[in-house]
Amino acid sequence: MEEPKETSKSALKKAEKQAKMAAAKAEKAAKQAALPVVGGKKGDDSKEVIGITVSKNTNFSQWYQELVLKAELVEYYSEISGFYILRPGAMYVWNVIRAWFQERIEEMGVEETNFPMFLSSKDHVEGFAPELAWVTKAGDKDLEVPVAVRPTSEAVMYPYYAKWIRSHRDLPFRLNQWNSVVRWEAKQTTPFLRAREFLWQEGHTAHLTEELATKEVLEILELYAGVYEQLLAVPVVRGKKTENEKFAGGYWTSTVEGYIPTNGRGIQGATSHCLGQNFSKMFDITVEDPDKKGDKLFVWQNSWGLSTRVIGVMVMLHSDDKGLVLPPRVAKTQVILIPVGLTAKTSAEDRASHAKKVEELYDTLKNAKVRTDVDNREGYTPGFKFADWELKGVPLRIEFGPKDAAKEVVSYARRDTGEKGTIPIAELATKVPELLETIQKALYDKADASFREHRLVLTDWSKVVPALDSRNVVIIPFCEAPACEERIKELTKSEEAQEGPDGQKQPSMGMKSLCIPFDQPEGLVKGETKCLNPECSQFAKSWVMFGRSY
Amino acid sequence: MEEPKETSKSALKKAEKQAKMAAAKAEKAAKQAALPVVGGKKGDDSKEVIGITVSKNTNFSQWYQELVLKAELVEYYSEISGFYILRPGAMYVWNVIRAWFQERIEEMGVEETNFPMFLSSKDHVEGFAPELAWVTKAGDKDLEVPVAVRPTSEAVMYPYYAKWIRSHRDLPFRLNQWNSVVRWEAKQTTPFLRAREFLWQEGHTAHLTEELATKEVLEILELYAGVYEQLLAVPVVRGKKTENEKFAGGYWTSTVEGYIPTNGRGIQGATSHCLGQNFSKMFDITVEDPDKKGDKLFVWQNSWGLSTRVIGVMVMLHSDDKGLVLPPRVAKTQVILIPVGLTAKTSAEDRASHAKKVEELYDTLKNAKVRTDVDNREGYTPGFKFADWELKGVPLRIEFGPKDAAKEVVSYARRDTGEKGTIPIAELATKVPELLETIQKALYDKADASFREHRLVLTDWSKVVPALDSRNVVIIPFCEAPACEERIKELTKSEEAQEGPDGQKQPSMGMKSLCIPFDQPEGLVKGETKCLNPECSQFAKSWVMFGRSY
Repeated sequence: MEEPKETSKSALKKAEKQAKMAAAKAEKAAKQAALPVVGGKKGDDSKEVIGITVSKNTNFSQWYQELVLKAELVEYYSEISGFYILRPGAMYVWNVIRAWFQERIEEMGVEETNFPMFLSSKDHVEGFAPELAWVTKAGDKDLEVPVAVRPTSEAVMYPYYAKWIRSHRDLPFRLNQWNSVVRWEAKQTTPFLRAREFLWQEGHTAHLTEELATKEVLEILELYAGVYEQLLAVPVVRGKKTENEKFAGGYWTSTVEGYIPTNGRGIQGATSHCLGQNFSKMFDITVEDPDKKGDKLFVWQNSWGLSTRVIGVMVMLHSDDKGLVLPPRVAKTQVILIPVGLTAKTSAEDRASHAKKVEELYDTLKNAKVRTDVDNREGYTPGFKFADWELKGVPLRIEFGPKDAAKEVVSYARRDTGEKGTIPIAELATKVPELLETIQKALYDKADASFREHRLVLTDWSKVVPALDSRNVVIIPFCEAPACEERIKELTKSEEAQEGPDGQKQPSMGMKSLCIPFDQPEGLVKGETKCLNPECSQFAKSWVMFGRSY
Repeated sequence: MEEPKETSKSALKKAEKQAKMAAAKAEKAAKQAALPVVGGKKGDDSKEVIGITVSKNTNFSQWYQELVLKAELVEYYSEISGFYILRPGAMYVWNVIRAWFQERIEEMGVEETNFPMFLSSKDHVEGFAPELAWVTKAGDKDLEVPVAVRPTSEAVMYPYYAKWIRSHRDLPFRLNQWNSVVRWEAKQTTPFLRAREFLWQEGHTAHLTEELATKEVLEILELYAGVYEQLLAVPVVRGKKTENEKFAGGYWTSTVEGYIPTNGRGIQGATSHCLGQNFSKMFDITVEDPDKKGDKLFVWQNSWGLSTRVIGVMVMLHSDDKGLVLPPRVAKTQVILIPVGLTAKTSAEDRASHAKKVEELYDTLKNAKVRTDVDNREGYTPGFKFADWELKGVPLRIEFGPKDAAKEVVSYARRDTGEKGTIPIAELATKVPELLETIQKALYDKADASFREHRLVLTDWSKVVPALDSRNVVIIPFCEAPACEERIKELTKSEEAQEGPDGQKQPSMGMKSLCIPFDQPEGLVKGETKCLNPECSQFAKSWVMFGRSY
């Protein structure tokens, strides 16, 4: 890859800037991600490697860690490990998702609220107790009662639901909040997938009947599927979690499950829970039964959340060794317009008239509502610029030089396939938006084909582990018994070394149940088909999707 | 006011629900706000007083505390004092402001980011040290290094600015984040005005020159003025803070200042700071001087923030003894449509046809983009409904009964003035939006007239304290010396009892400088006009606005 033409001074300047953080970062980053430290020591004038130094297929974890940094989606927070700074590239994607989802839940009648970030007791958050961040001092004074930062808000919100919900007229009662929560994970953290603080929305609703609650759980799940499929071009399988995998406090959990072809792992996308009456009984959230005057009725509750994890799934799925690949619908810059073919010989006059033509192209695209930027940076070769924008994931590159101008066309290159071509300037306003939608669809179709190909319906136990080792998830007849699920995890541990989340080779994990797909394959006969676990004597209740997973 | 027709059972039910929180709330609320506890003891079946029990003019503080609760803008968080739950009524207003401001800063090229909520050292936040909330434990393990929740993010963000800003090509560098910050105030807290956690946006930018930084400071201040004047109908005075009142870490501070007629107090609206090079020198944020190759240049920085305090100012200014008064542009419900005039004698057929007409009115308004709700609640009298929607601040009430239908009109009542009238149904789609804009303008004009009338330009010291005691702010010739400003505060303390923020009468505070208005009155002659403080021998530098204030 070509390097920017720079004076050694400005190179030095860069190195100095990088050096400021290098020391602190090196230590943390090395611990966190076995990352090569960008930049170098103070005074070291070596240039920065802008590209990614490893391959997605040979070292997936390091590839991912480098990618999210170099594509400027996140920055490691060197002050405190397990925390990440979300940079504008990531916040743009999150805001597109937020606006899309918010518009739809408003139509459903969900209202917005904002509860405090602290709770004063760990009642009803036992599951999170080991991960609670406790504030014990204000200034230099000890608090009489320590307070914890919310890991989720059920225990913060539901006492007020008991107060606010007074009559069946108040139902459905639906609130959502956009905030961040803190879970002080002991486990390995990974940008977007597992962080000690993350952004999400949490919806908490109450209904008169189970039927009404169920309807909403599934409506929300369909919106979560829409975020993945329509915005992020990520195919998902909709289903129900098994008892072992559902939200502990809840009644049942619906989920959308994704798949990462590179390592064959399943990944949970988002969950929409029916809490049943468990919490309304704990917090005494009741209304008078409209059908039996005087009888009190515990409300049916749901909670549902979508977090910035979605960005990590999108990045892992579409991106490549050149860097990030963004679906056009969530790309802040959909088209990067790069003037080319100007040499030292080009006259000032020709430069000016070419610049004017570039301006016109920009205006045409802007008027066509295409999010376009022009790269007029001086001192950088086109080759450097191409690599830089590929790293940042811009879906479509348009090159425009005097030769193109003469033919009244622009030359383009697709980020997803590398495919090149030309578009007549006269058709720019229609062809470019079409091409962006073509890219959006191509990304989805490719991922969908791969997921379908690697979702194996198996009825032969001996094929299960080999299937996992060749990067598939499997759908098998299963009795749904928690103990049997545990045993299946044990039985499917493989001695063959596989890459773990920390990038180290390790004996690979056993398979977990991902979900009971709503869309069940044919051929399971109740009371006849056996659970596939050879040690299990029970009949199968359903086809269940299992896989190694995040 | 009429009471809802209710079975004693459902009244009992209400009382029971209220009782759940009453005990805890009573204690805290009493401490916090001398609030009468709504509801009553368990088993007490007395009805809830829905209206406000005190008058804005006789007990402003209690009026405010009751209003924000009963209009359902906030709920006290009984778990931890000084924290408030923002309910949908408040979040709607905040989201209108957020969308309006976000759109405009995006046009300016400000990008969005999200930094972690914790900082690990109190360096550079000394000013906030007494208010820092310290996390010392995760689960049951003590942290090696305690971390504090951000009170503001300069110290969190600027180390990364030093890393990211490498060249003058990276300037202007502008990031904004929407988040909440925690300042564990020892002082009396008040909903919106002073809370231990509050929502805000914080913009942090870097520029090549002072001139460019100054330009942005003023552009942002104008947006803050726009939030108050165009959205919230709150007039503000734009100006510069004196040395005593500026942001300590900064170079100079611009501000918009509001005025509360009921108690004659000034109130700071929002501030936009030029930080100068103070922080860039602390954090070593430099670029190479484009004009002097090799010379390093410390960047010029700004920071600017707008918080949910704006909602408190709006509430204090416009609302009255009946409850909240919302400017139409920020009202979630702009028009409440209430069917009236149906009696026990009305036939089912007539009821049905009237209901159909109401539906048609609703559709007409909805198509005209008027945010409209219909109050079809059964078991409540029109009188109760009127009072309930007045309490909640809906700008325009439309009543529609058989008599109106016969005349093909609707009857309306303005929330701001109480003025009543009729509108021909045929003109609904044009007249209602006009009327809403009329209300918006009327609220602003009334407040603006009052602020102008109570902003006294004085050149006679003896008139200052009487002016304050009769609820004015004053604009006086001032030398701008910090010591003189302190002395003026002392000299203007009044023995006459005035109501303090806690609703208690107390000897009233001295006056503080609110700002040096950009719009300076005539008549100040440099080197001739004396500072108005009789003990001061200096010449006046400018007209400065002083007042008792929040």
